[in-house]
Amino acid sequence: KFDDIRVTTHIQDPASQRLTWNKPPRSVLVIKKIRDASLLEPFKELCIFLTEVKNMVVYVEQKVLEDPAISGDENFGVITKKFCTFREDLDDISNRVDFIICLGGDGTLLYASSLFQESVPPVMAFHLGSLGFLTPLKFDTYQSQVTQIIEGNTAIVLRSRLKVRVFKENWDKKARVDENGIILTNGDMDSCRKLLQYQVLNEVVVDRGPSSYLSNVDLFLDGHLITTVQGDGVIVSTPTGSTAYAVAAGASMIHPNVPAIMITPICPHSLSFRPIVVPAGVELKIMLSRDARNTAWVSFDGRKRQEICHGDSITITTSCFPVPSICFRDPVNDWFESLAQCLHWNVRKKQNYLEEEF
Amino acid sequence: KFDDIRVTTHIQDPASQRLTWNKPPRSVLVIKKIRDASLLEPFKELCIFLTEVKNMVVYVEQKVLEDPAISGDENFGVITKKFCTFREDLDDISNRVDFIICLGGDGTLLYASSLFQESVPPVMAFHLGSLGFLTPLKFDTYQSQVTQIIEGNTAIVLRSRLKVRVFKENWDKKARVDENGIILTNGDMDSCRKLLQYQVLNEVVVDRGPSSYLSNVDLFLDGHLITTVQGDGVIVSTPTGSTAYAVAAGASMIHPNVPAIMITPICPHSLSFRPIVVPAGVELKIMLSRDARNTAWVSFDGRKRQEICHGDSITITTSCFPVPSICFRDPVNDWFESLAQCLHWNVRKKQNYLEEEF
Amino acid sequence: KFDDIRVTTHIQDPASQRLTWNKPPRSVLVIKKIRDASLLEPFKELCIFLTEVKNMVVYVEQKVLEDPAISGDENFGVITKKFCTFREDLDDISNRVDFIICLGGDGTLLYASSLFQESVPPVMAFHLGSLGFLTPLKFDTYQSQVTQIIEGNTAIVLRSRLKVRVFKENWDKKARVDENGIILTNGDMDSCRKLLQYQVLNEVVVDRGPSSYLSNVDLFLDGHLITTVQGDGVIVSTPTGSTAYAVAAGASMIHPNVPAIMITPICPHSLSFRPIVVPAGVELKIMLSRDARNTAWVSFDGRKRQEICHGDSITITTSCFPVPSICFRDPVNDWFESLAQCLHWNVRKKQNYLEEEF
Amino acid sequence: KFDDIRVTTHIQDPASQRLTWNKPPRSVLVIKKIRDASLLEPFKELCIFLTEVKNMVVYVEQKVLEDPAISGDENFGVITKKFCTFREDLDDISNRVDFIICLGGDGTLLYASSLFQESVPPVMAFHLGSLGFLTPLKFDTYQSQVTQIIEGNTAIVLRSRLKVRVFKENWDKKARVDENGIILTNGDMDSCRKLLQYQVLNEVVVDRGPSSYLSNVDLFLDGHLITTVQGDGVIVSTPTGSTAYAVAAGASMIHPNVPAIMITPICPHSLSFRPIVVPAGVELKIMLSRDARNTAWVSFDGRKRQEICHGDSITITTSCFPVPSICFRDPVNDWFESLAQCLHWNVRKKQNYLEEEF
Repeated sequence: KFDDIRVTTHIQDPASQRLTWNKPPRSVLVIKKIRDASLLEPFKELCIFLTEVKNMVVYVEQKVLEDPAISGDENFGVITKKFCTFREDLDDISNRVDFIICLGGDGTLLYASSLFQESVPPVMAFHLGSLGFLTPLKFDTYQSQVTQIIEGNTAIVLRSRLKVRVFKENWDKKARVDENGIILTNGDMDSCRKLLQYQVLNEVVVDRGPSSYLSNVDLFLDGHLITTVQGDGVIVSTPTGSTAYAVAAGASMIHPNVPAIMITPICPHSLSFRPIVVPAGVELKIMLSRDARNTAWVSFDGRKRQEICHGDSITITTSCFPVPSICFRDPVNDWFESLAQCLHWNVRKKQNYLEEEF
Repeated sequence: KFDDIRVTTHIQDPASQRLTWNKPPRSVLVIKKIRDASLLEPFKELCIFLTEVKNMVVYVEQKVLEDPAISGDENFGVITKKFCTFREDLDDISNRVDFIICLGGDGTLLYASSLFQESVPPVMAFHLGSLGFLTPLKFDTYQSQVTQIIEGNTAIVLRSRLKVRVFKENWDKKARVDENGIILTNGDMDSCRKLLQYQVLNEVVVDRGPSSYLSNVDLFLDGHLITTVQGDGVIVSTPTGSTAYAVAAGASMIHPNVPAIMITPICPHSLSFRPIVVPAGVELKIMLSRDARNTAWVSFDGRKRQEICHGDSITITTSCFPVPSICFRDPVNDWFESLAQCLHWNVRKKQNYLEEEF
Repeated sequence: KFDDIRVTTHIQDPASQRLTWNKPPRSVLVIKKIRDASLLEPFKELCIFLTEVKNMVVYVEQKVLEDPAISGDENFGVITKKFCTFREDLDDISNRVDFIICLGGDGTLLYASSLFQESVPPVMAFHLGSLGFLTPLKFDTYQSQVTQIIEGNTAIVLRSRLKVRVFKENWDKKARVDENGIILTNGDMDSCRKLLQYQVLNEVVVDRGPSSYLSNVDLFLDGHLITTVQGDGVIVSTPTGSTAYAVAAGASMIHPNVPAIMITPICPHSLSFRPIVVPAGVELKIMLSRDARNTAWVSFDGRKRQEICHGDSITITTSCFPVPSICFRDPVNDWFESLAQCLHWNVRKKQNYLEEEF
Repeated sequence: KFDDIRVTTHIQDPASQRLTWNKPPRSVLVIKKIRDASLLEPFKELCIFLTEVKNMVVYVEQKVLEDPAISGDENFGVITKKFCTFREDLDDISNRVDFIICLGGDGTLLYASSLFQESVPPVMAFHLGSLGFLTPLKFDTYQSQVTQIIEGNTAIVLRSRLKVRVFKENWDKKARVDENGIILTNGDMDSCRKLLQYQVLNEVVVDRGPSSYLSNVDLFLDGHLITTVQGDGVIVSTPTGSTAYAVAAGASMIHPNVPAIMITPICPHSLSFRPIVVPAGVELKIMLSRDARNTAWVSFDGRKRQEICHGDSITITTSCFPVPSICFRDPVNDWFESLAQCLHWNVRKKQNYLEEEF
């Protein structure tokens, strides 16, 4: 009998995910967008609250404290002495932080994500101006919200990330090694490969860069050539990233709880190149087409832009390390609120072109 | 510590699903599109093979045998005497069939799906002309393919369905009860509700029907009003249905293995009403808006079209009963093959508008 | 030498068109949307102003005066005695009216257009609620605006219309003749053709009507088969109509001063069926495809919906009789104001997904 | 009376334009794509035919003859001695050529267009491989086609161009002056403006160039701010250009005989930023928005890419100098043939998702 596969499909209720602690959190990383004067006072107020009221160990990035507006504030200096500081790409804090607080826009959360190439602590992302897709929390009530997080039992959304690996062929080993670069020697010392690895929360973009020629890249899925992208480029995004660059390129919008990867061409030369959504479990690979006249460029959440040459390859899989993001209400309501606020989704005048009667 | 949610996201490999049998299959339902003369000979040949060579119990719909081209064939008459017959909506064969064979186009599989409102046996869908999204198998080699199915160990894709329930308010109980209709009396015999229930494989469509006014329906998700659809209508589809009507209305295309529900407006009055994809686990509800001037019409995989009035509601959830479909190669390759063959996805001339040089 | 065609392309400044009178206007047709109580007082006020202050001859449709809210107002009754009345489809007022005033939404202007199958007097279209594409004028200042029109020298936009002719084959001559129907007998009294003719301001729509099958129509341009439309239908629109139903079906938006015809498929089955814009001077023809399984339905500015059968044809050319519409400011500013107000065109939050820096 | 504006709209039949000569043409410019070996023999054959058989004066670009594959051919050398040669940007041939023959792809015609900043002679554009939008003629029958042109009476399409002027503020006058650059001194010798002028046949593109930040430019029409473009950039194209880069960015396709300008955003951040089509007679201006963080880049038919800084402006009007292009059949048939061949417009499988019946 065929009872085995008479299974139910996954019916996971997105609203059911909640954060709980095994033991109370002790340490918090505070990330502040730099060069934004409007964040200074909220940042100080928050740090004082965390340190003095909540007795948390506060981690802050070294360069944030080097801002004259902070280092010159003597009163606040007393507090900063209690901080643990670190430097991007130099100090590993991945296992020392219980949760993260971001102050700024969506870019702040992308930056926070980039700091954790493996497991990411839960993130509270506050906006001070307008709501963002990645920054659902209002700063006004930060005290009660932080208190609630520490107590546990908050709604959370697990935002999937993509693990992207770039293999550079015939790479000149004498060049500066990128912070994430691993040199793979082949015995032959003159020819070696470099492997770079990134975790992206929004998207990987491969485009024609400054070239005025079309990009021409091959797209593989689980080892098979699926299609060739001829146009301005291609975006491989998470569901979270579907509302960022991908939506501008014409993609449908995908809720972060859908386990999927979105592939969206940028200004494709073909009228029929509609975006597609594939299961989270596949492996994608992008390479220059054999007959590409030009190189392509790749970037990761808008950062670390670099050139891709013939023979190089980019492999993309769903990462094992999602970003757990604290919700304002819950994953469903937060998302629709963002669609309305950030993208004016289906905001319309009730004017009915077929509606009047005579 | 926050170890609990440092989980890996689902990394289910779509290519890994396979059909195996606990005990050998004995019975097979053969579904043939009616009124298509080109299918007659393949149908007879297949039935003889199944009966004579494979010793299977063959189920065939009564109306198929009533076709004069079949009932008039005396030689084939000997074979048909061995068939088990049934009638749509009258005989329940849901637990008597080990697997299904479809001959015809995508509509044949939609029909097969509609026959099984609960668990669906595995389906082999053969196309005789051109490849369809739902009919991946070529009839040429049906013998080896049927043999392989019976032996088990074939690639299979579980196509999710939607469970749709229509609540009709103030329904006139004296009217004819639909085959799926259940009357919910409220004590008050003059006012009662009717509940209809359907399993759809492609989509539920709510549109303005013959009215020349815009449809105006409210869309709820998990009980919250998400948005109002003003336009020709709205399509709620499975990933399988994303390549049917939804793609014509502008949706991105979703692989059947992605656990999701797609919501696509039809000619929306709002420029910003982009299609959205929500997790499979949510509950959707559609009702006429309070200020709708007209009724709306609903249909289920293009069938059973009916009117929706003020107070009626349509609830939609992912069904527990997917359609297990036998693959030609595997879920990933079959899908991309269909995209190319059925939709000419990204088929293009290699002409490069920016490419020539002087 | 090739001097002949070294011509300049048309460089017509849309803002330069202005209305002037050869002799002062004496008569005005006032069109009011019926069954809208909010229009009653403005209508009365306007009519008194035109009659008493401006000494104009006022034409009003019979059915407007039959509204009990008007016929029951004794004071206003004195005024109405001075009106010239007429009935749609029965009385020809085409040469008796110097200009038209519309009160209501876009539908009111579409109705006004349908009353004039040949030359159309200039139209002042007032909105009382929100701005429409066809109703740019605010009622608040109607007195000064009417005064200005009468004096002449106002900005005007000539909105092109389409002349649509429907040839019905094998039409049953005993059936009721439509108000615009002309019977073309062929000698053979049993077989005759009917010719219907319409002037549309927005669009002709051919769709599948209540059928659940795709429409399947052939599109000819200047006698050549251009393409076959398989889908929900096709919209042939004026530039004015590009912002009505066509925009909902995915069309680009065309300024009314562009001499062009837009062809937009409705939910086409083909991914590559992008809308096209052809010169105003071509002749289009639409017929059912030979292999269409079903009839199609045609409507004209959303009215006069009727069935199209095998052998029937619809020919469409740019009409010689545009609708001269009085502008609020000028054709360019009015249009962009409508795009913003009616369609929220490019209304956005200034959130920059690539913009933040670290 | 209002007789003045009871005008007919322009009903120009695109198929009616034809080329005739006042006196027989004597001189022809042959343009060949360089670095394409497949064009060598056709080029030689054509030149011999023009010189020996037709007794035409043949103009060829100096760099074409410098190709070793041509200069090394002694037999052909005899012919080349009769040629008139010229160099791009140095020699003015604008009044010396009666018509032009292009061998190559669409880029060859764009290049030919760029050589003539004012009046352009009629162009015969031959494709040797596959049909292009700008290269409708098949080389196989070049002899009869050239003969027909010389005799006159051929179908022709006037492709409008855009006149683009770039004003650079605070430009360093000591920098190299571009070939089209005119220095506008302001008396004050340290501050001067540069004016560059281009004729484009396809489009002007303003984009973010190598920057990873969104472009942010203001768009003015006849002096009024119409909208702000936030995204990858904006394309201002002729109808001819609507099937080039603009179609990849989502534009509808416009026949070259429509007197219009198309404005298409590239990956706009706003969901509602649909492309628009404005009358040919307007003046557009593009400038960086006041709050743009980055410069933008502009290019002209894919060439002469340059940076645009705060204070610079780009004005765009329809040029008085269209490109007269010889048709294969006529403007309408050629265009639809190109849509099918180059863009696979509405090419589809006749599979009917709603079509099957049970």
